[in-house]
Amino acid sequence: MDDTAQAQHGYIHQKDDYLKRLRRIEGQARGLQRMVEEEKYCIDILTQVSAMTKALQSVALGLLEEHLSHCVAQAAQAGGAEADEKIREASDAIARLVRS
Amino acid sequence: MDDTAQAQHGYIHQKDDYLKRLRRIEGQARGLQRMVEEEKYCIDILTQVSAMTKALQSVALGLLEEHLSHCVAQAAQAGGAEADEKIREASDAIARLVRS
Amino acid sequence: MDDTAQAQHGYIHQKDDYLKRLRRIEGQARGLQRMVEEEKYCIDILTQVSAMTKALQSVALGLLEEHLSHCVAQAAQAGGAEADEKIREASDAIARLVRS
Amino acid sequence: MDDTAQAQHGYIHQKDDYLKRLRRIEGQARGLQRMVEEEKYCIDILTQVSAMTKALQSVALGLLEEHLSHCVAQAAQAGGAEADEKIREASDAIARLVRS
Repeated sequence: MDDTAQAQHGYIHQKDDYLKRLRRIEGQARGLQRMVEEEKYCIDILTQVSAMTKALQSVALGLLEEHLSHCVAQAAQAGGAEADEKIREASDAIARLVRS
Repeated sequence: MDDTAQAQHGYIHQKDDYLKRLRRIEGQARGLQRMVEEEKYCIDILTQVSAMTKALQSVALGLLEEHLSHCVAQAAQAGGAEADEKIREASDAIARLVRS
Repeated sequence: MDDTAQAQHGYIHQKDDYLKRLRRIEGQARGLQRMVEEEKYCIDILTQVSAMTKALQSVALGLLEEHLSHCVAQAAQAGGAEADEKIREASDAIARLVRS
Repeated sequence: MDDTAQAQHGYIHQKDDYLKRLRRIEGQARGLQRMVEEEKYCIDILTQVSAMTKALQSVALGLLEEHLSHCVAQAAQAGGAEADEKIREASDAIARLVRS
């Protein structure tokens, strides 16, 4: 992978950290299946769902900050239609996160 | 499992459906790892995170409705401190979902 | 107002408290207009919007808990179709809160 | 107000539109007080709270997009510590919106 790609997808600098967090989230999804399988108390399952949602949001906010720092900032420096497009695209992604 | 347990944890009536949805969510968590591994575009990863969050919320809302229908409704019929406790506990779980 | 109405709309026991909180939220909405009018810094406006959203959510969660304690619990005690309807209606309101 | 200020706080280009939306939100807050005052049905109040929350979120997302387009994009063009600071500040505001 060359420097251009590195600059484009800033999150890869912390790739291992994101992979570790996503593996933990995958583990939480398996844990939830086990709880349903064993018919655990509903409220305890909901507590786990809330924890998993927070972990996912935290991954999303981290990726978004890196995207703004690298990809959007570079496009802003270049300016023009590409910059506008990147900002609109990021804004749409933020709206999806806020509404989900 | 006896009838009491069935009545207590209402969601088990749809256990297979919940397990299927949670397996799909586990698959989404694995898909996200693959996207990070392959350095996919950040916005596409965020779109997948939003979809996964919505799927999780939908599981939570389903479980909560069944919990209200079975566990909380039964406690309300019995009345007394147990009923108050169940409603406070459900309200706390709802607050965690709204805030996550 | 008779006892039936009191029992039906449980929140009126804390009517003054809710009115006070909603007046404060109305004040926050006016404060936001002043900030836009005076062209305050965007991030400071967003901080106020987040505070106002949290205040609104807190009112909603309070009303919901009282609704479950009074209206839904009473319907559950009575049982039948009315109970099912009240629980479905509350679940729909919870879904709207979680998704907004 | 000079051009510099216009560039800094991009949202003022649509100042009247934001003021109109915030006045409508203020009206919703007054409507909620009236509903509590008149002891309206709890679920109907919650529906109004959800509508008001969505209206507030929509204002926040609009302000944020304009902030990214103007203030953050300008800082990115200038580069350096100021750019990093603006992006971190915007990311923090986004995190507050996502979590509220």
